[in-house]
Amino acid sequence: MSLLVIGTVAFDAIETPFGKTDKIVGGAATYAGLAASYFYDKIKIVAVVGDDFPEGEIADFNKHGIDTEGLQIKKGEKSFFWSGKYHNDMNSRDTLITDLNVLADFDPIIPENYQDCEYLMLGNLTPQVQQTVIGRLKNRPKLIVMDTMNFWMDIAMDDLLTTIKMVDVLTINDAEARQLSGEYSLVKAARKILTMGPKYLIIKKGEHGALLFHEDKVFSAPALPLAEVFDPTGAGDTFAGGFIGYMAKVGTVNFNNMKNAIIFGSALASFCVEKFGTEKIKNLTETEVAARVQEFVQLSSFQIG
Amino acid sequence: MSLLVIGTVAFDAIETPFGKTDKIVGGAATYAGLAASYFYDKIKIVAVVGDDFPEGEIADFNKHGIDTEGLQIKKGEKSFFWSGKYHNDMNSRDTLITDLNVLADFDPIIPENYQDCEYLMLGNLTPQVQQTVIGRLKNRPKLIVMDTMNFWMDIAMDDLLTTIKMVDVLTINDAEARQLSGEYSLVKAARKILTMGPKYLIIKKGEHGALLFHEDKVFSAPALPLAEVFDPTGAGDTFAGGFIGYMAKVGTVNFNNMKNAIIFGSALASFCVEKFGTEKIKNLTETEVAARVQEFVQLSSFQIG
Repeated sequence: MSLLVIGTVAFDAIETPFGKTDKIVGGAATYAGLAASYFYDKIKIVAVVGDDFPEGEIADFNKHGIDTEGLQIKKGEKSFFWSGKYHNDMNSRDTLITDLNVLADFDPIIPENYQDCEYLMLGNLTPQVQQTVIGRLKNRPKLIVMDTMNFWMDIAMDDLLTTIKMVDVLTINDAEARQLSGEYSLVKAARKILTMGPKYLIIKKGEHGALLFHEDKVFSAPALPLAEVFDPTGAGDTFAGGFIGYMAKVGTVNFNNMKNAIIFGSALASFCVEKFGTEKIKNLTETEVAARVQEFVQLSSFQIG
Repeated sequence: MSLLVIGTVAFDAIETPFGKTDKIVGGAATYAGLAASYFYDKIKIVAVVGDDFPEGEIADFNKHGIDTEGLQIKKGEKSFFWSGKYHNDMNSRDTLITDLNVLADFDPIIPENYQDCEYLMLGNLTPQVQQTVIGRLKNRPKLIVMDTMNFWMDIAMDDLLTTIKMVDVLTINDAEARQLSGEYSLVKAARKILTMGPKYLIIKKGEHGALLFHEDKVFSAPALPLAEVFDPTGAGDTFAGGFIGYMAKVGTVNFNNMKNAIIFGSALASFCVEKFGTEKIKNLTETEVAARVQEFVQLSSFQIG
């Protein structure tokens, strides 16, 4: 029994109204793996880096209980690098540099002892690679969660639709739900997307929280109102990692557990944006996480009748 | 003991992607009064119309238990008229016509038997008129709720700031909170606005719900995800009316009751947008309202621990 996370492990250079970083460690699998590690301890990662990736960072994964046997290190090659600049409202950003490097021909090799995977987190990546991972698992995991983005809708819609058919939970943002469905109303968008394969759809709305759709049910999760968002990079990956980490911990896939998983994922994401990169989510205590979850409970609870 | 509602009683002509109306009855006091009537039965209205305003509509107010002694009818004059067209996303609109008519020199006369007012809803109007009403009440109401909009921030900021100082609860939308405070973060905006007079601030976020700020506490209320928004006109007024109507019903002003009041206000507002104008909120049953409130409970409840 384990949780397999695939996605990028990479370098980012980030500029926000609050400051600027040099190359720091980022990537969907990095954020998702670290976030999941607060809830579950059998996490395995499949990703690729170049030999420029610091050994200390890999040791940090291991310290968080993340198995890195499936992290390929390509000699003489460079890790994926993304650089972006956030606008003043922190809701929009410009991509300055995308150097695919090792990602250009990433072949996701699944080590033999990863075949006990019961929970699969397909972090944001080429839909083709996400699909390959599913195909290489001998047993279909109990729960497959897929994160993706508008970029793949623009350039690889057919692949995306094929991959979406194979997953249980899809996480996308509101603009992406509209793009994928061609519907402006999120309710109509959700109805359409739930006919495309996934049994659950999570629509991430950033500072407005998230919606979970399943059959004819909806759950609306709040976002914690924050005085300052320092760096939004990785918040969506952190959310997804916290979500599946919590699901792996409780072990039963149903709507009620997913509601809680969204709250735990949102709590982790609210930490993520408080510092640059992974700085905050690398160094949380269980007490801090529990207290933050209680803030979400306080924030949204009311008693009627 | 009564709830006094001031605001416009008017005609609107509305165009949305779903259709178009001729002159229909609208106005902040109309929506707020009708919404409040589902929770409280001693509602009194102060407003002004011309003699073009249909007697049947006034009779409808009375049928909802709304006292119209304070509704001035100006002989030979015309009622306030607004015409607008909503864009496809229903979140933005263009004003096509604003004919102030009787509103141009509205003097809000308070009938003597309105002086038992304990709850005061200052619907969206010139801040100067809102202020005059407070001044003309012999006893300060137990709870004053004020709704306003960016228009008054643009042309009458000083008056607005004076009026804001005198109220307990301010309801504005997120863009208006940012404009009023000069802060982008809604948490920082709320902190600043809570130093301007109001003890409670409600930030309305439309399809993203509402936030209630008080001292260092925050409550996040969801919005009901709707497949179709037919006509958003009056949703904010309906919300405010439902809010204060519920507060008048429970009779105790505190944070927990306000959380519930926001849910009841949101439930009424979710009905409002389902039809043109007041059509839907004029004809609700108690059972329908109770069922809708239960949808809000289902929508946002989760059990952790």
